[in-house]
Amino acid sequence: MPRVQLIGATGYGGLGMIELLLAHPEFEIASLIARDDAGRRIDEVYQHLIDRCDLTVQAPDDDIIGSDCDIVVFATPDGVSQGYASALADAGVRFLDYSGDFRFGDSAAYGRYAAAHPSIADGSHKSEALFDRSQFGIPELYADKIADSPITGNPGCFAVGIILGLAPLFTDDMIVDGTVTVDGLTGSSGAGKKPAPLQHFSHLNDNVVPYRVFAHQHVVEAQETLGSLSGGPASLHFVPHLLGTTRGILSTMHAALTKTATRDDLLARYREFYADHPFVRVLDTPSTLKGTAGSNYCDISLETTPDGKRVVVMASIDNLMKGQSGNALQNLNVMFGYDQRAGLDRPPLYP
Amino acid sequence: MPRVQLIGATGYGGLGMIELLLAHPEFEIASLIARDDAGRRIDEVYQHLIDRCDLTVQAPDDDIIGSDCDIVVFATPDGVSQGYASALADAGVRFLDYSGDFRFGDSAAYGRYAAAHPSIADGSHKSEALFDRSQFGIPELYADKIADSPITGNPGCFAVGIILGLAPLFTDDMIVDGTVTVDGLTGSSGAGKKPAPLQHFSHLNDNVVPYRVFAHQHVVEAQETLGSLSGGPASLHFVPHLLGTTRGILSTMHAALTKTATRDDLLARYREFYADHPFVRVLDTPSTLKGTAGSNYCDISLETTPDGKRVVVMASIDNLMKGQSGNALQNLNVMFGYDQRAGLDRPPLYP
Amino acid sequence: MPRVQLIGATGYGGLGMIELLLAHPEFEIASLIARDDAGRRIDEVYQHLIDRCDLTVQAPDDDIIGSDCDIVVFATPDGVSQGYASALADAGVRFLDYSGDFRFGDSAAYGRYAAAHPSIADGSHKSEALFDRSQFGIPELYADKIADSPITGNPGCFAVGIILGLAPLFTDDMIVDGTVTVDGLTGSSGAGKKPAPLQHFSHLNDNVVPYRVFAHQHVVEAQETLGSLSGGPASLHFVPHLLGTTRGILSTMHAALTKTATRDDLLARYREFYADHPFVRVLDTPSTLKGTAGSNYCDISLETTPDGKRVVVMASIDNLMKGQSGNALQNLNVMFGYDQRAGLDRPPLYP
Amino acid sequence: MPRVQLIGATGYGGLGMIELLLAHPEFEIASLIARDDAGRRIDEVYQHLIDRCDLTVQAPDDDIIGSDCDIVVFATPDGVSQGYASALADAGVRFLDYSGDFRFGDSAAYGRYAAAHPSIADGSHKSEALFDRSQFGIPELYADKIADSPITGNPGCFAVGIILGLAPLFTDDMIVDGTVTVDGLTGSSGAGKKPAPLQHFSHLNDNVVPYRVFAHQHVVEAQETLGSLSGGPASLHFVPHLLGTTRGILSTMHAALTKTATRDDLLARYREFYADHPFVRVLDTPSTLKGTAGSNYCDISLETTPDGKRVVVMASIDNLMKGQSGNALQNLNVMFGYDQRAGLDRPPLYP
Repeated sequence: MPRVQLIGATGYGGLGMIELLLAHPEFEIASLIARDDAGRRIDEVYQHLIDRCDLTVQAPDDDIIGSDCDIVVFATPDGVSQGYASALADAGVRFLDYSGDFRFGDSAAYGRYAAAHPSIADGSHKSEALFDRSQFGIPELYADKIADSPITGNPGCFAVGIILGLAPLFTDDMIVDGTVTVDGLTGSSGAGKKPAPLQHFSHLNDNVVPYRVFAHQHVVEAQETLGSLSGGPASLHFVPHLLGTTRGILSTMHAALTKTATRDDLLARYREFYADHPFVRVLDTPSTLKGTAGSNYCDISLETTPDGKRVVVMASIDNLMKGQSGNALQNLNVMFGYDQRAGLDRPPLYP
Repeated sequence: MPRVQLIGATGYGGLGMIELLLAHPEFEIASLIARDDAGRRIDEVYQHLIDRCDLTVQAPDDDIIGSDCDIVVFATPDGVSQGYASALADAGVRFLDYSGDFRFGDSAAYGRYAAAHPSIADGSHKSEALFDRSQFGIPELYADKIADSPITGNPGCFAVGIILGLAPLFTDDMIVDGTVTVDGLTGSSGAGKKPAPLQHFSHLNDNVVPYRVFAHQHVVEAQETLGSLSGGPASLHFVPHLLGTTRGILSTMHAALTKTATRDDLLARYREFYADHPFVRVLDTPSTLKGTAGSNYCDISLETTPDGKRVVVMASIDNLMKGQSGNALQNLNVMFGYDQRAGLDRPPLYP
Repeated sequence: MPRVQLIGATGYGGLGMIELLLAHPEFEIASLIARDDAGRRIDEVYQHLIDRCDLTVQAPDDDIIGSDCDIVVFATPDGVSQGYASALADAGVRFLDYSGDFRFGDSAAYGRYAAAHPSIADGSHKSEALFDRSQFGIPELYADKIADSPITGNPGCFAVGIILGLAPLFTDDMIVDGTVTVDGLTGSSGAGKKPAPLQHFSHLNDNVVPYRVFAHQHVVEAQETLGSLSGGPASLHFVPHLLGTTRGILSTMHAALTKTATRDDLLARYREFYADHPFVRVLDTPSTLKGTAGSNYCDISLETTPDGKRVVVMASIDNLMKGQSGNALQNLNVMFGYDQRAGLDRPPLYP
Repeated sequence: MPRVQLIGATGYGGLGMIELLLAHPEFEIASLIARDDAGRRIDEVYQHLIDRCDLTVQAPDDDIIGSDCDIVVFATPDGVSQGYASALADAGVRFLDYSGDFRFGDSAAYGRYAAAHPSIADGSHKSEALFDRSQFGIPELYADKIADSPITGNPGCFAVGIILGLAPLFTDDMIVDGTVTVDGLTGSSGAGKKPAPLQHFSHLNDNVVPYRVFAHQHVVEAQETLGSLSGGPASLHFVPHLLGTTRGILSTMHAALTKTATRDDLLARYREFYADHPFVRVLDTPSTLKGTAGSNYCDISLETTPDGKRVVVMASIDNLMKGQSGNALQNLNVMFGYDQRAGLDRPPLYP
């Protein structure tokens, strides 16, 4: 069984990966590593894991990173994996990173991302030489490349829904550039487990809070990816909104079309586009936030205007699954040649 | 004291008006009328009114409608007030209607609205002759006309935020027609108190559900009003979303601008436009749903793209206050010559 | 593979069983039967099942009930299974029932239950002769009997937490009779999918609503079971509270002790009592509602007063899992000789 | 107009008092004082106050405390007011304190409270000499004493519901000592505005979390008060539960009765007991959390067992109103001779 070393094991992203690995038929957990809570058992950190996992969290000492495992998963913030990347590459250890460190194939694109990121001080990167050995991890678009890649950059949560929601239209050059608006609605868990004023219950409950208006960093990878599909520019006008709910992202995406189309035309095209992709479902009725909760699905729906000149696409994901850990495990499945569904074939939790 | 007869007293819209009238320094309640719950005391229907209001709900018999009062408020669905309108007009009794029956100045516009409305069977109207004696009730735009009007058509909840949020831009011809997209996020209370699958707790809790995509009737009155401000067409591409929260509407509105502008330019213009209007607040930071809850405020904020060619405007209201009963009372204040703030000068309930 | 016929397939209880059976290594679904939605595909009724289950719901015609299957599961309200029970017994078809029809071993106990039930008109029962062939389905207490029983009466949701939470104390005669108070807190999903005023979102959101105070029917089976453990009377003073959340029941149970005990004494005894039961976890810190959400666990914690004379026990379950479908599948596993964990070995969904 | 100096102005408790004072016909705000956010305008700290209050928060310098005002309100944690108390007493300035510093008439009782409090290091108090000049602030019980008291100790949020809910029974010696159990359910806002793991949205949403089981400090003042009403001991077995909601406390209180009584007997007695108290409502149906939200009401309901030997009392308050700022203003009204309802006569916000 391939052994997975998990770094950043005690955040929500690490937690999700632990739970998925425990249920996976092929992988096993090699070690749990985190700066916070090192020395504690994971079921002390997360009591719902009692009787399920009693591994002890280890500190991220240099000599442990990458040792005794077949792959490393960095469930860590921007800037962490790039510090270990060269050593891992030299040792021939593959890794997947949750952050933006290895989502971009070149320095210019990374620089645009870094400039938009509120917690990246400058655009420098410690391992730019590895950009051409890394692959952006959208398995619906890049499975072949992910399969062989030593490094996979797992996408940002908002980017997943936006890219999957618009990929068929950009691929077909159906979008009038500059007309795309995206209103993203996200649950609170994307911000992680650290208490903060925006995630304080009394503030967020029953609330909707737009933030980083036109300035969220995830839009950069979405623009890069969609632009590469169309072969032209792809500008997105993106407004994220924080919701008083725990899980889920619903992205509502409007655009003008380069040629008229009916709803049925587009639904047929989407269904063709995603025919071989088990985690994208194209629905006849509007996607709902709860329709994907707890699952790895991306539920896509759409509507056109009566004149066929405009479209709105709605994409729902669970931000901690298809928007993070689930997509990461899907990438691991691809990297190790397993069925993409392995360990991920579960329904949404409804009601 | 002017005496208000309230029809549809036992719905959420009626309830809101009861509470506001009880706290108003000038108005008094003449009678509470409703088909449902007739014969019961209002504090049996709504127990939170115990010790506050013990009036008995009366059935809507023809001889009681309009009698012994100075104004009638119809907190009723579409189609109700138009049946009583002629008799009231003949008797010289003014009225305000919550529904779309008297929001439109002409039959063509009403017909467009009726065609979009899911529960209006045809576009016929029983009192079209009174259209030219009615006034659409946005007091920030039409206070002078409302003051003298025998009939006020209180706006739809979504329309309030959209109209106030975009009025300065349409007035100044700043909007490129056809580019406006609106994603509206609404709490559940707009659907009223009648149990229904979409408002079933287990379904709606933690959920976001887009509905009537590009097909909500409130967009018609918004288009009519904004078009009249600009003197041209005003097409809105509107997607309402039902949220798992009780109160509030946040409307996020994107548009391309006819001439470039900075955020500061537009904020200054908005502050000038609403300088004399006590219930519109122009904020420096994004409007939040909870920032207006329980109050009659409309909180507006905005952002432009770096190139100054596009804008997003965010408007927050409490759908049961500025989106319904609060705006209705504001109209009553105007109709009777009181300060618009009378009975409405309360802060949002935070946290 | 044993084939399961599911009656009442389109309610929340039926839905839960469908999802569990789909993921089970041994069982397969023979047929989905329901009065509502007969003729529709189950993934039209519940869209989150798209790509997961496309069976068509069949009407409950007499000739289909019990045919072509190895066991029947009635996910139906009180009074349904008793009408089919004799025919199934005659045909030698085993069944499990979610309702109270077969939770009681004798007519007197059933009569007490029926008298407390708001929707059972009288205490008569169509198949009392089968009472001695049925078994109350708490697998932690009665696995041996369930294994051989032709009929299993799955417990009421509140009863599960109360019984598991108090069973060690009643077994050891530690409870002073008449001193037990239970405050039960339940999510809305226990009331099913049918819209109703108590489950209307605008009413229930942010609310807590006590109901059927001292009068909930689930207390009867808890009293019968706990009394049989102690060999004496077991009276419970039970107040259920409806919460503004979808899933989960937290039962807080106070009692005076017949002999003093420390917290450590009792924790040790509970851990011994449940040592061989994989779904009961005895925690060192207070049980939380979310700590079991989506899983089949019952999380128990407790505290004593400093003088050792009183105890409070807190038990958390997911009302739709250990409180309903999960416990039902656990019973099916026992009835067919599988590991109790088969198809149920999943973590809570956290956060 | 009496001028109120508010210390701790930027916490939720201070915020509530600001809003109430702004709406009060008699009081005016003299100054807002807080260590956090000193130098900022209050409508920068709380944006929903824009256009309502633009006072600047001042630092708590010694020379400002108690100057230029008619009364000081300490909306501060335990230990703050006792440091200023002697100076204020010497200067003849009355004050009201939200904390436990002046809730107790003697050192022994304060010591019991301090011992139970998780953030009071020892039981020493800087101003014990003032205990006999202070009054515990339950206006329904002690209005005459509050009216003349130089110091009022506003009660803890849980204590308000427990004391009002049980006062008639303890007054009448109806309670069998040692049998009272209280399960208290509280919204998150009682913990204030400081982000913390228990109040982190992703953790608390949809959750119920028991805490400080049998060990919450508010029980001490409830026991002292109820014991003084009965003239005997009053022991309460209290388990607080944190809910995933913002506002409200519902306390469910069970007890054995010294003499049998029917529900009607007790309701009549409660109504007599609270006849002259405008903020206590005795209901015929169970109290609900939302039934008091945003108001100063305490809604009490009860049920007895069929044998008349036991009772459960349910009391609902808004923890930030009757549980804190609303009760505090009610006390100020009493201290200055105004109608208790002044500035507080508002309905709950429903739905």
